[in-house]
Amino acid sequence: MISVSEAEKTILAHTINLSIEECPTPDAIGRVLREDIQADRDFPPFDRVTMDGITINYQYWKNGQKKFLIEGVQTAGSPPFTLQKPDSALEIMTGAMLPTGCDVVIPVEEITFEEKDGKKFATINTPQLIQRQNIHAQGEDRKKGDILVPANTLLSQAEIAVAVSVGKSTLKVTQKPKIAIVSTGNELVGIDETPEPYQIRRSNSYALASALSKIGIKADIWHLPDDQQLIEEKMSEIFRDFDVIITSGGVSKGKKDFVPWVMEKLQVSKIFHRIKQRPGKPLWFGKKDNKVVFGLPGNPVSTMVGLFRYVMPYLREIEGIERKPLQFTVLSEDFSFDRDLTYFLSVKIINKEGRLWAKPIPGHGSGDFANLLDCDAFVELPAHEKNFLAGSVYPLIPFRNI
Amino acid sequence: MISVSEAEKTILAHTINLSIEECPTPDAIGRVLREDIQADRDFPPFDRVTMDGITINYQYWKNGQKKFLIEGVQTAGSPPFTLQKPDSALEIMTGAMLPTGCDVVIPVEEITFEEKDGKKFATINTPQLIQRQNIHAQGEDRKKGDILVPANTLLSQAEIAVAVSVGKSTLKVTQKPKIAIVSTGNELVGIDETPEPYQIRRSNSYALASALSKIGIKADIWHLPDDQQLIEEKMSEIFRDFDVIITSGGVSKGKKDFVPWVMEKLQVSKIFHRIKQRPGKPLWFGKKDNKVVFGLPGNPVSTMVGLFRYVMPYLREIEGIERKPLQFTVLSEDFSFDRDLTYFLSVKIINKEGRLWAKPIPGHGSGDFANLLDCDAFVELPAHEKNFLAGSVYPLIPFRNI
Repeated sequence: MISVSEAEKTILAHTINLSIEECPTPDAIGRVLREDIQADRDFPPFDRVTMDGITINYQYWKNGQKKFLIEGVQTAGSPPFTLQKPDSALEIMTGAMLPTGCDVVIPVEEITFEEKDGKKFATINTPQLIQRQNIHAQGEDRKKGDILVPANTLLSQAEIAVAVSVGKSTLKVTQKPKIAIVSTGNELVGIDETPEPYQIRRSNSYALASALSKIGIKADIWHLPDDQQLIEEKMSEIFRDFDVIITSGGVSKGKKDFVPWVMEKLQVSKIFHRIKQRPGKPLWFGKKDNKVVFGLPGNPVSTMVGLFRYVMPYLREIEGIERKPLQFTVLSEDFSFDRDLTYFLSVKIINKEGRLWAKPIPGHGSGDFANLLDCDAFVELPAHEKNFLAGSVYPLIPFRNI
Repeated sequence: MISVSEAEKTILAHTINLSIEECPTPDAIGRVLREDIQADRDFPPFDRVTMDGITINYQYWKNGQKKFLIEGVQTAGSPPFTLQKPDSALEIMTGAMLPTGCDVVIPVEEITFEEKDGKKFATINTPQLIQRQNIHAQGEDRKKGDILVPANTLLSQAEIAVAVSVGKSTLKVTQKPKIAIVSTGNELVGIDETPEPYQIRRSNSYALASALSKIGIKADIWHLPDDQQLIEEKMSEIFRDFDVIITSGGVSKGKKDFVPWVMEKLQVSKIFHRIKQRPGKPLWFGKKDNKVVFGLPGNPVSTMVGLFRYVMPYLREIEGIERKPLQFTVLSEDFSFDRDLTYFLSVKIINKEGRLWAKPIPGHGSGDFANLLDCDAFVELPAHEKNFLAGSVYPLIPFRNI
């Protein structure tokens, strides 16, 4: 048995390679970028007006002129005018390019307009102007050639916007791993079946697949009956077609615990089996060629601990994202656990004045998945300690959006 | 002009009704439940064994018996055995139903097995047994008929697992609103077009659509040229086909600011225009029948403030989720802003010992969308204050996963 931190380190050391593919930029949110995005021109690409109003040459106002003849209207998306007479003005719209000869924009709220003899005049009412105000200067944010988004960034809408603005209609991203979720056991029946009194419906596979869908992975679900020959045949096919195989159940020491057995048959190397933790101790991890197997324990809370503590960070790692710094939370109540195992405590997180408090909601053990309805995270309580005091800080593993 | 809190209150008071639809349970993550999910039987539905090992009648062990004849193997998914002789044992697997006559499970690690004359015996090595240990008792977690998940819950993998376990293959959920994102302006060109020096590519629409896709909404994107007749025609069609219309740009006081104009033409009531905030002041909000219009300002940072501060909470509200309590963060540096406007400060969030610190990354104003690459949230700094001190607590509006 190895410790939680050894297990994490070992898992992250056994990465597989995923291909790179082109993804249409509008669909790339949540994907991992595998190229640098460079500025194709300055940001902004021109002196960009940020208010509706008029634009003039600042020196004339400074010298006392308050009323300006309007020569025309400079709209956004039009080639820039040139001020014909240096003491005139142009009406101007947000997003327009600053006309030649102008260097200040006065918002429409600070202007009085009047018309006389077919001519239009603007009087500036504000006592204060700053040269170049309301102008977003060319290159102020980024210069042409700058790397705007480096490779290995997880793409949010902010990166999508930047990619679009430099004309990238597709982006090189990491291909999503093909994931199979496999359960076995005659005690498990499908959603639509009516279980015998001694059976239950197989909910774990759907919990796993749902959680993966939130990170953009469409996993395939398989259920195999308790039949060794069939299990071997099917697992061999699944192993051929998928990058990551997640099994649920079948990893403890029982007679029907098929994972270690079938993986030996398929010549998948066992990297480790069992972690010093509760719940979720009998986790099995193995690798063969460019494929890995996570044998998650079948108790539903254990399955979720395995998924969020080990599988999710592994998927980030193989997709190529920088490792996330650990998140922390403050325990709101004392809690005790006297075994030499890391304990994953189910909690409800409350943000109080910017501090994340974790309220323990222990439930009835690893089979009590209804308990997770009231929780949104696990807190990782280290082995070697027995009493965890209110106010102490521990790592946080969120499993819903907090 | 109204305040940020008035704007929020007003927007949330103008909800529209969305239909209810059936969604396959495996696809329902991120959807909002519109029915109660009840327990169809007890949770667990039977006395469920939680370890591999043997099971016996506790009284015999308590009276000093350590060695037990094994009558058979009770696997998971099989009808329960009845112990033939009360002082015998059964081998038993995790997930199995407790056999009649047994009331304690001893894990395989604490057992020595031996075979003699074709009979198998188990000797219990542990000095301590607790009656009913390693048995997850029928109904311990929830009782048949209990409401497991109430209506109006946002579904995570935990709720999906519970729904599957009670045999719900579809769930009643709120239909996602049909959303159109509309931009106008000749200064904006498509991703694949080469902009003139005075033009830019329209990135806002993609930022909006990407962010909405993260909450399961596939928005339609429209771009209309600066042509009043065409805008009126197209907007009339869009208005007919969508529930929520989000426009980007065209809400300030400029000549080409089409939103107030076209909404008047379409007889959409203006609820308010302009909020006492920066960035994003000229936000326009209107309603007609069972449809609403968010006229977001076109400066990219303003657009994102509008989306995350107003549109996202509105979408939660119309989908029927309980309002989220405000999240908070602690300012890590002093910041000043001396106008009587709520200021949305771009920040990077750092979790230090369970406390969320917000590091200001101010950027170059509302046009500097490259600045958002370095940020993950806005902090809402109230109007009427000028100096915001390090260590003070303010509301947090995250715009990526922190």
